[in-house]
Amino acid sequence: MTNAFTRNGLFGDLLVDPELAEVFDAEQILGHMLDFEAAWSRSLADLGAIPDDIATRAIAVIEAARPDIAALGLGSEADGLPVPALVAALRAGQPADVAQAIHSGATSQDVIDSALALAGLATLERLEARIEGVVAMLDDLTDRFGDAPLMGRTRMQAALPITVGHRLGTWGAAMAGHLDRLSALRVEVGRVQVGGPVGLRDVPPDQGDAMAGMVARHLGLAEGPVWHNDRSGVVSLGHWLTLVAGTCGKIGTDLALMAQQGIGEVTLTGGGGSSAMPHKVNPVLAEVTVALARQVAAQQGALAQAVIHEQERSGVAWTLEWLILPAMAEATGTALRHTASLLRSIERIGTPEPRGQ
Amino acid sequence: MTNAFTRNGLFGDLLVDPELAEVFDAEQILGHMLDFEAAWSRSLADLGAIPDDIATRAIAVIEAARPDIAALGLGSEADGLPVPALVAALRAGQPADVAQAIHSGATSQDVIDSALALAGLATLERLEARIEGVVAMLDDLTDRFGDAPLMGRTRMQAALPITVGHRLGTWGAAMAGHLDRLSALRVEVGRVQVGGPVGLRDVPPDQGDAMAGMVARHLGLAEGPVWHNDRSGVVSLGHWLTLVAGTCGKIGTDLALMAQQGIGEVTLTGGGGSSAMPHKVNPVLAEVTVALARQVAAQQGALAQAVIHEQERSGVAWTLEWLILPAMAEATGTALRHTASLLRSIERIGTPEPRGQ
Amino acid sequence: MTNAFTRNGLFGDLLVDPELAEVFDAEQILGHMLDFEAAWSRSLADLGAIPDDIATRAIAVIEAARPDIAALGLGSEADGLPVPALVAALRAGQPADVAQAIHSGATSQDVIDSALALAGLATLERLEARIEGVVAMLDDLTDRFGDAPLMGRTRMQAALPITVGHRLGTWGAAMAGHLDRLSALRVEVGRVQVGGPVGLRDVPPDQGDAMAGMVARHLGLAEGPVWHNDRSGVVSLGHWLTLVAGTCGKIGTDLALMAQQGIGEVTLTGGGGSSAMPHKVNPVLAEVTVALARQVAAQQGALAQAVIHEQERSGVAWTLEWLILPAMAEATGTALRHTASLLRSIERIGTPEPRGQ
Amino acid sequence: MTNAFTRNGLFGDLLVDPELAEVFDAEQILGHMLDFEAAWSRSLADLGAIPDDIATRAIAVIEAARPDIAALGLGSEADGLPVPALVAALRAGQPADVAQAIHSGATSQDVIDSALALAGLATLERLEARIEGVVAMLDDLTDRFGDAPLMGRTRMQAALPITVGHRLGTWGAAMAGHLDRLSALRVEVGRVQVGGPVGLRDVPPDQGDAMAGMVARHLGLAEGPVWHNDRSGVVSLGHWLTLVAGTCGKIGTDLALMAQQGIGEVTLTGGGGSSAMPHKVNPVLAEVTVALARQVAAQQGALAQAVIHEQERSGVAWTLEWLILPAMAEATGTALRHTASLLRSIERIGTPEPRGQ
Repeated sequence: MTNAFTRNGLFGDLLVDPELAEVFDAEQILGHMLDFEAAWSRSLADLGAIPDDIATRAIAVIEAARPDIAALGLGSEADGLPVPALVAALRAGQPADVAQAIHSGATSQDVIDSALALAGLATLERLEARIEGVVAMLDDLTDRFGDAPLMGRTRMQAALPITVGHRLGTWGAAMAGHLDRLSALRVEVGRVQVGGPVGLRDVPPDQGDAMAGMVARHLGLAEGPVWHNDRSGVVSLGHWLTLVAGTCGKIGTDLALMAQQGIGEVTLTGGGGSSAMPHKVNPVLAEVTVALARQVAAQQGALAQAVIHEQERSGVAWTLEWLILPAMAEATGTALRHTASLLRSIERIGTPEPRGQ
Repeated sequence: MTNAFTRNGLFGDLLVDPELAEVFDAEQILGHMLDFEAAWSRSLADLGAIPDDIATRAIAVIEAARPDIAALGLGSEADGLPVPALVAALRAGQPADVAQAIHSGATSQDVIDSALALAGLATLERLEARIEGVVAMLDDLTDRFGDAPLMGRTRMQAALPITVGHRLGTWGAAMAGHLDRLSALRVEVGRVQVGGPVGLRDVPPDQGDAMAGMVARHLGLAEGPVWHNDRSGVVSLGHWLTLVAGTCGKIGTDLALMAQQGIGEVTLTGGGGSSAMPHKVNPVLAEVTVALARQVAAQQGALAQAVIHEQERSGVAWTLEWLILPAMAEATGTALRHTASLLRSIERIGTPEPRGQ
Repeated sequence: MTNAFTRNGLFGDLLVDPELAEVFDAEQILGHMLDFEAAWSRSLADLGAIPDDIATRAIAVIEAARPDIAALGLGSEADGLPVPALVAALRAGQPADVAQAIHSGATSQDVIDSALALAGLATLERLEARIEGVVAMLDDLTDRFGDAPLMGRTRMQAALPITVGHRLGTWGAAMAGHLDRLSALRVEVGRVQVGGPVGLRDVPPDQGDAMAGMVARHLGLAEGPVWHNDRSGVVSLGHWLTLVAGTCGKIGTDLALMAQQGIGEVTLTGGGGSSAMPHKVNPVLAEVTVALARQVAAQQGALAQAVIHEQERSGVAWTLEWLILPAMAEATGTALRHTASLLRSIERIGTPEPRGQ
Repeated sequence: MTNAFTRNGLFGDLLVDPELAEVFDAEQILGHMLDFEAAWSRSLADLGAIPDDIATRAIAVIEAARPDIAALGLGSEADGLPVPALVAALRAGQPADVAQAIHSGATSQDVIDSALALAGLATLERLEARIEGVVAMLDDLTDRFGDAPLMGRTRMQAALPITVGHRLGTWGAAMAGHLDRLSALRVEVGRVQVGGPVGLRDVPPDQGDAMAGMVARHLGLAEGPVWHNDRSGVVSLGHWLTLVAGTCGKIGTDLALMAQQGIGEVTLTGGGGSSAMPHKVNPVLAEVTVALARQVAAQQGALAQAVIHEQERSGVAWTLEWLILPAMAEATGTALRHTASLLRSIERIGTPEPRGQ
């Protein structure tokens, strides 16, 4: 099934982003889940809870597994998530001790949330590179056009003269701020989830924290407390996405305003054509970027509802995250990509020369 | 590209709905766009603006066209929408009079918005059938269990005794209300868009309203004024989706509360399993339905921003609709499908018999 | 307590609207609640459930009551709403038969929801008058400036010439559409609430619908089914507010864009001054109107959550309505008032004369 | 003007919080604005831009000023904010050199944003104290009831036994996490705003950063770059409020579920009465807390739109902050206050003793 607007459809990649979509691709997420299961078995052996050779055999089973995604999907339709079907598939046909070395003491939420943490870190990595690219382009534009005069505008009215460099600087400073936020955010987002069925983290007995630490190290995640029903980290990721997409939307708004006839403060190459008016050059990417920024911002009002997560695990609040977060990440990636394209397309920026002179 | 959670992924169809997704499939929307172009050429001839035989040839071209969706996608990446590329493809290689008989006087927005109106009507048709199915199931459950006692609950506390029929009746009355709203809504949603580049509706000269009426009739849409920059109808469709999904979420919440241990007011067959606790039967579909309802409700806060649609056409506000509305329709369809499954899975409903008697 | 921005504060009435705020004033809502109680007692007697003279005495008590609002507030802090304290105050010191003739068989929700229905109708009445005022101003502007040339703009770019009348016409048509929606909306919004503790509507026995009809007539409300846990009408009111505020925001956006230097398509008298730049004239009301429109739109994403209303009455979902709906109504009223001020302040509208000619 | 639901009305302080409201009281904000003006004059003298004695006289004027709030309100209705009227009032009747020593080189946004930063810090201070109170109560409850058995519940179903201490621990850990976020947040929120009309920060010439540092020190704010059009700090404050309110909502949801008949895992003293059912004890504060949490979460979807802040200053995006942020802070304060009341009202918590034993 395609979607005319957003997947393999009539709008191409205008409203989507393959590189960010890949972060949440079924194969990728399944890979993270299998990595968790392998790390789990390995850590059980590390702590002496199961014999080494049994763990080795379990891990070999996990690493060789090629689970059928459609079959896992059917499992999800029954169970609400693919983990029971995945564990059953891994254990199928194995001797009892090997089967027992797989997933025992973990819970579905440990698997999915740890996979989500890995996807969250991948999201940050890819967006960081794009923000850095935007910052570099802004530096380059400043080198080329920074001293050019521009009218400073407040409340949609001409205020006082500034330079192109001043405005580009405000764009760049906001983006740099988002990069600065990354180190703290990575700790919040990239935490292993190890809690067991009701969050007690008591496997192996009295060694729960050590187990969490082991699993974290094997997966390249941070340690930290169980976050089964404290979803602050997920919502903080969403918050950062609203800031990044919002700055893209700010740049897009500024460029669309600068490109107006009668203003003429920027000339963009390319731009969109019209089916009815061949003379028009539309700042399409600028507008799309603003739309994406408004969408991402609004999503945070939904994602933040996920903090209201009842009891030891809420199927409602948790599902809400899956419905919203991947789309926010992809829309933010799309907004950044378009921002880079827009900056690349700037031929000239600054107060236009008076005509006829 | 798949998405682990929502398309061809690890969650199967749990969070999506193929039948509703099909409404917004690229082939479907493209088909509506071609239908618009054929209706346009035909109507030009009907009103004497072009010769009949030229219109016939133009329509033959349109009906025989098999535009390449990927190529249209590339066009959208340049132009913001696929219509310029589509029109160019249709006109390519045609003699001037035939080329001129295609799309002349129309604008991209006429094509896309009319296609959206057709997709809106298809959405309503499919959801109507599902609501009718839910109402029929509720009637059947009322026949079987309506007289059974149930505790009426207000503010999460036992209040006064009611019957199962009373509670089912409130579910059914809300759904029936949504059906009642359909006839007025269809008029708002199913309006042809005929305005031309800036909404003047002046093609053929002095016959713009007649032209709109013709095109509407050929497409099975309603007549009405140009709605290029009055997006009330689109937002009203979103509003209705929030009501329908919300009632599904109300039913899901009620069922999840009734299914609690210690309450035991409903027994559902199936339900989800747990990777850690084989004894558990989770009311998965009830929870997913609530999550979908919260998502759809929150989206309306974004979609309603589309009313703030500047000038004769806003690329920002319009794009926002495409990002949001199809997902709302699909989520509402998913919620209705799960509601039907939940009702079908009710084995017993009402105050449980005291144990040990 | 004041609020610097929104009540009796540093921003005056810029962000609020006294006339709309009055609809939700404590005295007003209390008046509606007392009207409900009087209508209830009267209807009990109409249907023979209590003697006429007892009803007359009960009504005299209700009409003479001057309940202390602060005391009712304390009651709400204990009970979640003021009705238990109000009923206790009304009954205090009355003989048993008169006390019994007050509120018996009704529930708090009947009182509050019926009061909300009356406040909803008052909201519509006041906003309708304002919309009519805006439409009249648009007609007048069209008479004065309708034939003046204007550049039609799509995607923030000059497209094709239109007239001022064309653009004003799109503003007016959207507003007229909102007026057209009112007759159906009044039926949804202005429904009496009569259900009793758990919505059974069984007081007097077997005469519940007749009782609801009586109470409705005494209050000037519409009849209809119990809507204790079907909140579609409330959410539909919110939806209409988003459309109205959104059209105000569309007009505000257009005016702010038209007023830009280099565009100069409108000259507004007044406008705001700057503490730093005395030469600037800012289109303050246009910007404030857009902000209000965005706020109202976003609120609908919260209000629509109220449809997910569990069991026979949800304290969560119901409270959410009170937190959101009055603020939406007031913001919409403010947006309409500013829109009228903006239109009144138009000195000139249309493509500016070329300078120096 | 009162509001039946939220100010001086029929619901008392149920839905509001006087202590948090006070942070945004007109007198408070005006006081911050005057503090800014005094710090500005003082810093101009510190840097030698004006003579010391003139600065002293200007500061005396500012400190003695008792501006009429209603008059400032009228100024805002004309100018969009109260600063032009305030500056005019301060300068009125002063000799030119003293008048010139007031506000020169600053802009309205510097004044308002710095006042907002001070209000933001006051918000954090008051909420921090409340969170610490909640954490202390949770510790105390853990001391008293921590070892009591409780059923761990996932997906609304009984899962495995836990203890009361485990669940209280998850509540406390989330709250502790919010306290941990405060030190970084205070830097983001508590930044002085010094930019001048278009953000150039060039007063006194070549000493702009030194000036910002001086003003910051006088006001007890942090230094940092101009944030005229980078609103990340404001939106990050809103994000933290959603986390805090969300955890309150999580606790409220849990308590409402635990208090259900048939579950009986908690006994709360007080609770709300019913006008129709004297036997009921409603967990009113739990439900109100959840409603507040949902409201705050949804608001973030609106507040985050403020990042899309065009040019050097957007009247739209900026006004949106004023409409939304104070209400979010107050709702979060109310949610924390109710959470504390709920915890204080716990008489007993844990799996109930079987009856009849």
